[in-house]
Amino acid sequence: MAHRYFISELCGRQAVVSGDEARHLIKVMRIKPGRQLLLTYKDGYDYTATADRIEDGQVIFTVLSKQKNPADPQKKLTVFMALPKSDKLEFITQKCCELGASVLVPFVSEYCVAQKSKKDEAKTRRLQRISDRACKQCGRSVPMQVELAGTFAQLLGRIKDYDKCLFFYENGGVSMNKTDLSACTNAAVIIGSEGGFSQKEADLITRRGAQTVSLGSRILRCETAALTACTLAMYNMGEME
Amino acid sequence: MAHRYFISELCGRQAVVSGDEARHLIKVMRIKPGRQLLLTYKDGYDYTATADRIEDGQVIFTVLSKQKNPADPQKKLTVFMALPKSDKLEFITQKCCELGASVLVPFVSEYCVAQKSKKDEAKTRRLQRISDRACKQCGRSVPMQVELAGTFAQLLGRIKDYDKCLFFYENGGVSMNKTDLSACTNAAVIIGSEGGFSQKEADLITRRGAQTVSLGSRILRCETAALTACTLAMYNMGEME
Repeated sequence: MAHRYFISELCGRQAVVSGDEARHLIKVMRIKPGRQLLLTYKDGYDYTATADRIEDGQVIFTVLSKQKNPADPQKKLTVFMALPKSDKLEFITQKCCELGASVLVPFVSEYCVAQKSKKDEAKTRRLQRISDRACKQCGRSVPMQVELAGTFAQLLGRIKDYDKCLFFYENGGVSMNKTDLSACTNAAVIIGSEGGFSQKEADLITRRGAQTVSLGSRILRCETAALTACTLAMYNMGEME
Repeated sequence: MAHRYFISELCGRQAVVSGDEARHLIKVMRIKPGRQLLLTYKDGYDYTATADRIEDGQVIFTVLSKQKNPADPQKKLTVFMALPKSDKLEFITQKCCELGASVLVPFVSEYCVAQKSKKDEAKTRRLQRISDRACKQCGRSVPMQVELAGTFAQLLGRIKDYDKCLFFYENGGVSMNKTDLSACTNAAVIIGSEGGFSQKEADLITRRGAQTVSLGSRILRCETAALTACTLAMYNMGEME
């Protein structure tokens, strides 16, 4: 897989790569006019383009052709993840993007050690950069979108927005093979932090229509549960074929 | 889940915890006689036991009862993993143990950057300690066994030993839902390192009877592929219910 770069502006056949992406092209790749590359505009297409010129720290390309990106997920999976400790959310962001999730929504639940803070916007930007890099690495054109951490009440309010919402609960539920996401185009999974969920939270989530699911008899760390849930949901939706 | 400790010697109703496990009990947990704990002897059972005395850095317990461990996998999955770079194998070891794999076999393939070395025995011991810790954390009684890194030829020779062996190949194959591991009691998965496999290696592996499987259109990092393969194989074997 060749390196791919995000287009900042696309106007007719002219594509502009700027910011960090241009800096990498100029300083690390030492790009010269005439070089052909694969660009992406986060719109479901891959653009084959030739570098025209370097101008004010930007690289200006001429687009030769565009092709439908083959790696973008066809169905949408949203991952609601209760805020884990330390840098686990960075790891979860990278892996969920690779696995094909469309949206990651961190939220605060009763047993979360991590809490909402003033730094959340900066954190979200950092996570989005991680998702963007994972997107380029795994071949997608549209990165997984990382939302600002929300509240438990906001999570509850959104459960109805999905064809199906699976609630991965450490105290049991049906096994994944009893669920069927094959007809879903817009599904969601809810995963707890290290402390899991309180009984009250579990009741509230299921009362809103989420289906409680178990991942079996082994106790998974929260980041492992996130990946496993994401893998099995994508598989169940037919997105790993 | 309470802390659990490995038994070094079990003789009738007397269980001895020694080494690092005893050190942790004495120095960190400040265990006193009379304290009741859950012990494990890597034999498929959990032992409820009471601390009797501390002697020469060992803790001697009296076993009150033993129960079948509920988290041990019923079916055996062996993960053949081409040596990845840096510390990724530590991560893969922890996660595969949590997910329920029984054996991890690192091996060297053509495109591996990491190679076999004199330090391999020490590395294997470190990985086994990681697996042991993951075992206690996830509730298993028998840790995943980590083997010394082998050669590609050794991998080839072992493919026939399994009911079914899935070869996860970056250049495509059938999708996981076209495989059926439900009747397997002893399956294996083969996963590549960052560089993947050469065409020659892929041919040799399939000629030995492994089934080539694809994880879809997104390019997964090798550690993500290992987890995804392990998750889907365990799920397919009915081990995540």
